[in-house]
Amino acid sequence: MKKKSRLSVESYIEGVLKGDRMVLSRAITLVESSLLSDQLLAEKVMEGVLPYSGKSIRIGVTGVPGVGKSTFIESFGKILLDKGYKLAVLAIDPSSPKSGGSILGDKTRMEELSADKRAYIRPSPAGASLGGVSARTRESMILCEAAGHDVILIETVGVGQSEIAVKGMVDFFLLLMLAGAGDELQGIKKGIIEMCDALIINKADGENVEAAKRAKREYANALHLFPAKESGWVPQVKTCSALEKSGLEAAWEMIIEFKDKMTANGYLEFNRQEQRANWMQEHVRYLIENNFLHNPKVKSRMGEILPGIKSGKYSAIAKARELVDLFLINR
Amino acid sequence: MKKKSRLSVESYIEGVLKGDRMVLSRAITLVESSLLSDQLLAEKVMEGVLPYSGKSIRIGVTGVPGVGKSTFIESFGKILLDKGYKLAVLAIDPSSPKSGGSILGDKTRMEELSADKRAYIRPSPAGASLGGVSARTRESMILCEAAGHDVILIETVGVGQSEIAVKGMVDFFLLLMLAGAGDELQGIKKGIIEMCDALIINKADGENVEAAKRAKREYANALHLFPAKESGWVPQVKTCSALEKSGLEAAWEMIIEFKDKMTANGYLEFNRQEQRANWMQEHVRYLIENNFLHNPKVKSRMGEILPGIKSGKYSAIAKARELVDLFLINR
Repeated sequence: MKKKSRLSVESYIEGVLKGDRMVLSRAITLVESSLLSDQLLAEKVMEGVLPYSGKSIRIGVTGVPGVGKSTFIESFGKILLDKGYKLAVLAIDPSSPKSGGSILGDKTRMEELSADKRAYIRPSPAGASLGGVSARTRESMILCEAAGHDVILIETVGVGQSEIAVKGMVDFFLLLMLAGAGDELQGIKKGIIEMCDALIINKADGENVEAAKRAKREYANALHLFPAKESGWVPQVKTCSALEKSGLEAAWEMIIEFKDKMTANGYLEFNRQEQRANWMQEHVRYLIENNFLHNPKVKSRMGEILPGIKSGKYSAIAKARELVDLFLINR
Repeated sequence: MKKKSRLSVESYIEGVLKGDRMVLSRAITLVESSLLSDQLLAEKVMEGVLPYSGKSIRIGVTGVPGVGKSTFIESFGKILLDKGYKLAVLAIDPSSPKSGGSILGDKTRMEELSADKRAYIRPSPAGASLGGVSARTRESMILCEAAGHDVILIETVGVGQSEIAVKGMVDFFLLLMLAGAGDELQGIKKGIIEMCDALIINKADGENVEAAKRAKREYANALHLFPAKESGWVPQVKTCSALEKSGLEAAWEMIIEFKDKMTANGYLEFNRQEQRANWMQEHVRYLIENNFLHNPKVKSRMGEILPGIKSGKYSAIAKARELVDLFLINR
């Protein structure tokens, strides 16, 4: 029954390239499917659209919950639409395996963007493994590009592994912060600041304007302490108010400047090449794991040893090696 | 040359069981090694010490940077030492692949604990993959237990994937927070709060006492909105000042109460059994990936296709499948 609802490879490709939102959504759903038949179909679709991808600027947006990411994306996104860009917003939210995450809920808050046909908004399913989600997000991004979206915003949350995943698939990585939210220079991981191409202090409005300016100076000083980036880009610190829609034009100009410079010096393409290589590696990992879990010998032996593993009678790492040997050597 | 510095399996086991700190450190280094010969040796050591492990209470401590984790662990740890416990502190810091993380730096701040022979403090190497780090941390924990440490604190940072990893290896999961650090109920991921067995508001001292009490009430109300835990444990909200050493006795009493209840209702053991099964799965993943990357056919084909992957000529996911087929089918 499930297969019946699938389109042909050609229909997916044609629909996506025409910018048909319904087909784009169905193609992303296909790509997210864990059924082997869907995956094989998805691979063909991806091969078909790949030559038409890559023409967007890919922007990662991160920041702790409460920093105003959704409002930023809504306001920033509308400016981009007004400039004539086609926008796609993808979200990665790996950190809430239980409740399904907060980003999905946030999406409903991007009311104006959601209502605009030039914007396409797609949250990734929470609860999937990080590798899984990030791999699918890459593919979703390619599909959105093939459908004509020329600005891709990939939103993530928290300070941790998901930032690394998003950094690994975008051109420009943007960290949103708040002024006066505790200890300015200790309150955020050095590693995340090091990864970002721009740090924007949001909610620079009302009584908060002065604090935001102060925070901007502090961060700008702090950024000087980091080693120069491989890209040659000097990370910028800016303020904005997503609510009052101030500072957003400047943010976009900065991203354009980044794109121009990085295109000229070759870093944009160099970085994307590295990202494509990593993408393949992550997918390899995903495929092998699937194979392992469905291997009959492994399944059978796993059933025998699992009680002893659970009780602590067997060593988990020794038995892991036994299973891997069974999978790889005594096939 | 490297092999010469290794002890025999028996010497590792004997030294660890005697509580010899030098041997314990060397055993953890062995476990962290990626050399096959070391890994095989480490597996034998782990099998030898496994029957002597499991007798500690395993506590995960998390919270955003700046919340005072190091000070908390220092003050809390000293109370435990005074009560006659042997403490081990392990740290996971996966979120800073570039700079090597901040926890390593923090460790030097736990001056008093570090100087006490009844405490053993070991940061995990940053920069390793999360799966890798968390797997090694599990093994380090077993070694510490076999060496007689009966309270294990596993520290992690940030809000994200590392919490999930730590939750997957401890009995009790403790979230440290601050009062008045922005939006109390939106500022932290629902998923992390859902995972925790206790939420302690740190820095409840000086002018901050009232705000901490208020935050405590708010969080206590918020926790009521979550579904009941599988364990039957009702998460507690407390305040403390690690600096003034207040609230720490109450925190420990809560953990003892947790351990007693969870031992009585069987959840402690049930949870550890699930964790052991996951441990094996994670190690399987690690071993297979190692095998893949060293497979001659894979290496050779990878070399051929990588330029096309990088340039975007080939589809990353289609070529990933080709490599996996080469690895698993056409061996």
